[in-house]
Amino acid sequence: MGKTIEKFPFLRACRRKPTPYTPIWLMRQAGRYMKEYRALRKRFSFLEMCKNPEVAAQVTLQPIDKFKLDAAIIFSDILIPLEPMGVKFEFAKGEGPVFHRPVRELKDVERLKIIEPEEEIPFLMESIRIVRRELEGKIPLIGFSGAPFTLASYMIEGGHSRNYILTKGLMYQNRPAWNLLMEKVSEVLIRYLNAQVRAGVQALQIFDSWVGCLNPTDYEEYVFPYTQKVLGNLDRSVPVIHFGTSTSALLPLMKKAGGDVIGVDWRVDLGEAWARIGYDVGIQGNLDPVVLFGPVDLIKKEVKRILDQAGGRPGHIFNLGHGILPNTPVEHVSALVDMVHEYSSQVKQGKR
Amino acid sequence: MGKTIEKFPFLRACRRKPTPYTPIWLMRQAGRYMKEYRALRKRFSFLEMCKNPEVAAQVTLQPIDKFKLDAAIIFSDILIPLEPMGVKFEFAKGEGPVFHRPVRELKDVERLKIIEPEEEIPFLMESIRIVRRELEGKIPLIGFSGAPFTLASYMIEGGHSRNYILTKGLMYQNRPAWNLLMEKVSEVLIRYLNAQVRAGVQALQIFDSWVGCLNPTDYEEYVFPYTQKVLGNLDRSVPVIHFGTSTSALLPLMKKAGGDVIGVDWRVDLGEAWARIGYDVGIQGNLDPVVLFGPVDLIKKEVKRILDQAGGRPGHIFNLGHGILPNTPVEHVSALVDMVHEYSSQVKQGKR
Repeated sequence: MGKTIEKFPFLRACRRKPTPYTPIWLMRQAGRYMKEYRALRKRFSFLEMCKNPEVAAQVTLQPIDKFKLDAAIIFSDILIPLEPMGVKFEFAKGEGPVFHRPVRELKDVERLKIIEPEEEIPFLMESIRIVRRELEGKIPLIGFSGAPFTLASYMIEGGHSRNYILTKGLMYQNRPAWNLLMEKVSEVLIRYLNAQVRAGVQALQIFDSWVGCLNPTDYEEYVFPYTQKVLGNLDRSVPVIHFGTSTSALLPLMKKAGGDVIGVDWRVDLGEAWARIGYDVGIQGNLDPVVLFGPVDLIKKEVKRILDQAGGRPGHIFNLGHGILPNTPVEHVSALVDMVHEYSSQVKQGKR
Repeated sequence: MGKTIEKFPFLRACRRKPTPYTPIWLMRQAGRYMKEYRALRKRFSFLEMCKNPEVAAQVTLQPIDKFKLDAAIIFSDILIPLEPMGVKFEFAKGEGPVFHRPVRELKDVERLKIIEPEEEIPFLMESIRIVRRELEGKIPLIGFSGAPFTLASYMIEGGHSRNYILTKGLMYQNRPAWNLLMEKVSEVLIRYLNAQVRAGVQALQIFDSWVGCLNPTDYEEYVFPYTQKVLGNLDRSVPVIHFGTSTSALLPLMKKAGGDVIGVDWRVDLGEAWARIGYDVGIQGNLDPVVLFGPVDLIKKEVKRILDQAGGRPGHIFNLGHGILPNTPVEHVSALVDMVHEYSSQVKQGKR
């Protein structure tokens, strides 16, 4: 297995091994900015697309056919495991997810089911198998999930939140409910991520997208033990990327919680962040998705800045700081991928 | 003048002089969480309250009558100077400010007026004079404004924003329009803040509430020169607090831009942030406003943690990390103010 893994620049970078250029993939690379995606989306709802293995596989591959990306990420949503746990939600038009019966007290948490992902989320495992077949070993496939805090906050708030009043309320004021919720979510995530590895993904990313609303002390007390537990119980044969946004002050703790690579957003200087967390883990990031709105000269300037900050050191995976935005010009994505490859190979050859 | 200023713990702390206890005030301390405010708000719209000097003065004093706060802050809104500049807006119910004709290109910026605050915002100067009279020298009064970036982003986006696509778009793609906009806003803010000092405020705070969406490089290039210009041209007789949220990675640059005190939100550890920016400026913060939802034991724990991080060093002003939230229990605000005074006086006497 070691041999197979090592040929891909993306997987080599996850393990901090030298690569001829800096590998790049983009969060939400299969998405609304692509006309091929929008065409399919007219025929299916977002959740239908996630739950139909053929469609999910097709969407996963759309950006791979178009750009020279170094990894695919399976098309799905971080909320997918919540439904079989017993937390129903829907995507209301323009509003994001809406949960009609949020988790607010101990009895809501007690009702949550610990799932068997292979039985209850078979469509995801099937789309992973299809994509692996279709990719024919060209590039590796990433599986993913939300992190315990981010999933808990969705269940408690009942959707997106501005101030996380209810999440922090439960955390501060109902410790038994919080602990049980985080334990159950963690157990589900361990099963869910390992099932994705068994189905064929070659790397994992956990998205702690909303964890940046916490102060470091609260992160350490209420979140760290659970994230650490998840990251400590994953199949060691695949590398894991641990990502969050607005995490500048949390980075040392996130690193301690685990992950082969720490994903950072654009709010930090990538070079400084890497120095701060230490070079014994990789780093992923961190172009501001808004920069992709152009012009190309600006994108080039920013790409160079980030690659120069990484300094050609093995272990940097180029990515955006958060998901690609809906109206991003497709030709700019293409230009980005090419310029990351080109400029980084010059840096690595010592020509820059 | 020196003598008068020095007696107030709040103003002493702004200058990093010893105080018998840590002074405290709260961002948005006059607001919806108070029934006295809600009663007035039934009779006036939010903007009517800002523009009526008697009402604004009354609202300013409501929290002062109720809590042992160490400073009052004049009741107003950061958007107030935009209307006379020619950018009309309204507060739509539940949506925050809405600008019907946002600033999107050079000709929009060229139209903006450089105002004479005393003539065009006389109501604010009058409410400052009334409050100073009513306070009878009991505690000092703070004046404020938005910072150039935060005001520019409101004008460009036309309201609140999630990704700041239009703001960054103008910044990256239309440098002449961006520069002129920031120059004009800066000039207005210098006039506006100095006019507040002439009317009687004894300290100033600039709110760069949304600057945390920028990476440090962009902050330095597109924002720093203007914020520095504003802070460098204010009446030196009053101290200035320079506040932002999600600014962990920006703090060294914000400090360099200016301000006697740097305001931080709860996302950073206050002790670490202060060590990082240096003890030659004061620090303000940084309780998470959500903590005020209780219970009191939690508030006490968090207050102690923050005061312990500040270590009794002169120059800490206790505050929330952002504005107080609408449904905050009033009795918790009262408890907070008292426990900050009590515990910090023990720390400063070496009893803790």
